[in-house]
Amino acid sequence: MNANRIPDIIIGRLPIYLRALQRMADKGVQTTSSQELGDRVGISAAQIRKDISQFGEFGKQGTGYHITFLLDKLREILKIDRIWDVAVIGAGDMGHALARYQGFTNRGFRIAMVFDIAPEKIGQKIDEFVIQDMANMAEEIQKAGIQIAMLTVPAPVAQDVTDMLVKAGVKALLNYAPISLTVPEDVRVQHIDPATHLQRMTYYL
Amino acid sequence: MNANRIPDIIIGRLPIYLRALQRMADKGVQTTSSQELGDRVGISAAQIRKDISQFGEFGKQGTGYHITFLLDKLREILKIDRIWDVAVIGAGDMGHALARYQGFTNRGFRIAMVFDIAPEKIGQKIDEFVIQDMANMAEEIQKAGIQIAMLTVPAPVAQDVTDMLVKAGVKALLNYAPISLTVPEDVRVQHIDPATHLQRMTYYL
Repeated sequence: MNANRIPDIIIGRLPIYLRALQRMADKGVQTTSSQELGDRVGISAAQIRKDISQFGEFGKQGTGYHITFLLDKLREILKIDRIWDVAVIGAGDMGHALARYQGFTNRGFRIAMVFDIAPEKIGQKIDEFVIQDMANMAEEIQKAGIQIAMLTVPAPVAQDVTDMLVKAGVKALLNYAPISLTVPEDVRVQHIDPATHLQRMTYYL
Repeated sequence: MNANRIPDIIIGRLPIYLRALQRMADKGVQTTSSQELGDRVGISAAQIRKDISQFGEFGKQGTGYHITFLLDKLREILKIDRIWDVAVIGAGDMGHALARYQGFTNRGFRIAMVFDIAPEKIGQKIDEFVIQDMANMAEEIQKAGIQIAMLTVPAPVAQDVTDMLVKAGVKALLNYAPISLTVPEDVRVQHIDPATHLQRMTYYL
């Protein structure tokens, strides 16, 4: 097994398996099959077996997968068997929503900092977070060694802010701005785009 | 070709192709190849050719795809060659962000209504939208024939609100609550979950 060779499309499916498995575990289910997991996530059993077998032999013919074991393995593979600090850039509606989002708990992430550029927002609080001045963003992120940021600034400034984040050492960006970002090869961007999700459903209407 | 037989996983990739193609078109690019498109979206050229060929012969060996033609075809397939009205349920941070989101324009959707349950929010405005009383939600959605809703209510009430929406005729739900929803078979749910997107990137850190 050479982890570097795993196609990105397979890596992209692992968090989906993880979420479905976590839900089963939360309900007290102990084992599952690739068929059952596949039915839940809309991916074929064969594909799931193939994806998971890239990383080792985690299931058994007949018995299937032990859910907690597979969860642990997936978390290890995805490096979320630790807690990553995340910076929220932009304290608008979306920044507020992310700073307060309850869905990061036990999933490998913790919001550590929130930045904005508006003088009337700087120093204000979102629950326990004090909104910090974006002028100090690069320095604070670098000092804290933060590698992950969620970008919720307006589209026209998103590329400039991205450039600053990349210089500060950010390697993974979740982009909420409706714009395509240019980053160096060693930086990953995921785009959160509600329109794309909606377009996937209209086909069936 | 039998559209009903197209696997959901293929349908799910079409909006991603659409977005990449739209970006090329915005830059004035007229033709592309499955290789070029694949490089942009991180999917193999063979997969893209296979996916697109499910719907007809839209490309030519040697010339590749005419971008505006393929865009039109994809919009037609995904039924976003029209405008769908969408209801936003919950006028918290996320509801505000969605009501103001600039990324729906020209992509097949228009926010039509925003609902909340809090007396102090009802009647307030988010830009041009008056926040309506959730008590009237089912009736208003039914009357307007709205089939798509974005759910931004707190997790503990998300299932109840979903049940009301389904009764009112909603067939496609974009769920922002960090919870799994149960819906009838003819209703589609897409889950927007920032943690899943982040987990896809930590693998590379």
